[in-house]
Amino acid sequence: MAQFELTILGCGSATPTANQNPTAQLLNMAERFFLIDCGEGTQRQLRRHKLRMGKINHIFISHLHGDHYFGLIGLISTYHLMNRKNALHIYGPPALEEILNLQMRCSNTELGFPLHFHATQADGKNLIFEDRRVEVYSFPLRHSIATTGFLFNEKPHDRNLISDKIREFKIPIYALNHIKQGADYTTEDGRVVPNEVLTHNPPKPLSYAFCSDTAFAQRTADFVQGVDLLYHESTFLEEDKTRAKNTRHSTAIQAAKVAKAAEVRHLLLGHYSVRYDDKALFAIEASSIFKNVTAASESMRIIASADEITIH
Amino acid sequence: MAQFELTILGCGSATPTANQNPTAQLLNMAERFFLIDCGEGTQRQLRRHKLRMGKINHIFISHLHGDHYFGLIGLISTYHLMNRKNALHIYGPPALEEILNLQMRCSNTELGFPLHFHATQADGKNLIFEDRRVEVYSFPLRHSIATTGFLFNEKPHDRNLISDKIREFKIPIYALNHIKQGADYTTEDGRVVPNEVLTHNPPKPLSYAFCSDTAFAQRTADFVQGVDLLYHESTFLEEDKTRAKNTRHSTAIQAAKVAKAAEVRHLLLGHYSVRYDDKALFAIEASSIFKNVTAASESMRIIASADEITIH
Repeated sequence: MAQFELTILGCGSATPTANQNPTAQLLNMAERFFLIDCGEGTQRQLRRHKLRMGKINHIFISHLHGDHYFGLIGLISTYHLMNRKNALHIYGPPALEEILNLQMRCSNTELGFPLHFHATQADGKNLIFEDRRVEVYSFPLRHSIATTGFLFNEKPHDRNLISDKIREFKIPIYALNHIKQGADYTTEDGRVVPNEVLTHNPPKPLSYAFCSDTAFAQRTADFVQGVDLLYHESTFLEEDKTRAKNTRHSTAIQAAKVAKAAEVRHLLLGHYSVRYDDKALFAIEASSIFKNVTAASESMRIIASADEITIH
Repeated sequence: MAQFELTILGCGSATPTANQNPTAQLLNMAERFFLIDCGEGTQRQLRRHKLRMGKINHIFISHLHGDHYFGLIGLISTYHLMNRKNALHIYGPPALEEILNLQMRCSNTELGFPLHFHATQADGKNLIFEDRRVEVYSFPLRHSIATTGFLFNEKPHDRNLISDKIREFKIPIYALNHIKQGADYTTEDGRVVPNEVLTHNPPKPLSYAFCSDTAFAQRTADFVQGVDLLYHESTFLEEDKTRAKNTRHSTAIQAAKVAKAAEVRHLLLGHYSVRYDDKALFAIEASSIFKNVTAASESMRIIASADEITIH
């Protein structure tokens, strides 16, 4: 069971082509399946990769440029036609709710499942989702329309009990939860057994930050400080940095500067302009600033643990 | 140069799958390129088939179920990003304009080309487009929401001048247009040269009717009377005719009954429910009622002339 797996469903920008899909990613964090952005064709990509759409209960939309959300209404329709029953949560700019409602009204669609819309705010860092294992924040990016990034944090795991020791000290079941949280144990005769005798360290919790689309912004590094994996858009190469500035996008080097300032473990690039044929150039340029970098490509899977990050 | 060519970009129903695209067709009639319906992924299909999107100036949307129009806003966005300059005409239900405008407003998009929206009416036969060579009508279908079919008629061609005869009778250029329209010619000395001496018959004008989605309706045959090619949806096989009735769709046999009553030259089936694996069954069932029938499949091209209809 993967602790952390990210699948790239699309990493092109602006216009889909025969070989390049617009932004969409599926994140499996602690067996929660989060769909992040949903360009046209995302449901087809989910099917192509045999990812089970029914498992997705939370969809995050960064902003209302078409290449980041035009596939959402089709996915919702498909869920409806598939007789989905479980609730679907959508997080995105307030106007997205209006767009979805208008389209459902025009097709006379009354969804057979609960759809909960959570409007994101384009200023400040805000907790938008939380359960026992994961919390998700939105934070502002700097683009031509209101745009947020998303930060996915695994919560600290419970400590791992050492079963031999639990038996040795005859620790009753009711005491175990406290010990998993880090408490010492006091035996009936008043002896204190330190927690580190009873438990192993759990795996380090992992984190993922998604930044698309955005101009270079120093403050982004604050929002994504120390994450294990940072996806940062790099629409342009350095030769087009003026164009990047004018269109409120980033170059590969600017993405690397954010990664470096934020001291992340690994940087993932994407959202490439169609003007470039060789996507490897993005990683080459970025690596002059930040060494641990990968240029995303469609169908790529990034698997992370506390020990290593592997690219498939 | 094709006089009449129809390309099937998608002929599935309801939900796109990895191998099946929702409804979209490209009709080339007299070198006018008409896009008919535009399900999610249509722009990708146009690219895959190397069809030049820039040539499409008229898009017809039958109704506001997503599998017939969710790809439209993405195609419009792509035209905008491609720096399209020539006007685009869209024909569809009135609420479609509201949907498109809302989505463009949310992305701060001011199109770089004129977009003319022509609202269709769901009752009566209405002329919605006309130029020198082609006229297009909408007509009502019988579905769960307001839905129109579209009838594309080539206008009668000019008669073909026989150049030897034009020289022989020393006919001045100013008189040629009348002769092409069928007029006789009177020489300077008062002799009447009958038109059939001066001209050949031109090719017979062709016609195409598109009916999707619809329950069986006898009146449909009146609207599509005598067309060269009739596309009529056949979502279901006969064993599911109750389901067809309840969902306001047709069976292959019902489509064939319309084709027979309308005395069309050829019937094209499509919009198949995903429940059937073997699409050939649709043509087999329909052929018990109407012999000249083809079950559409993705990427199929239908080329028609006055003499023959060929399937590629």
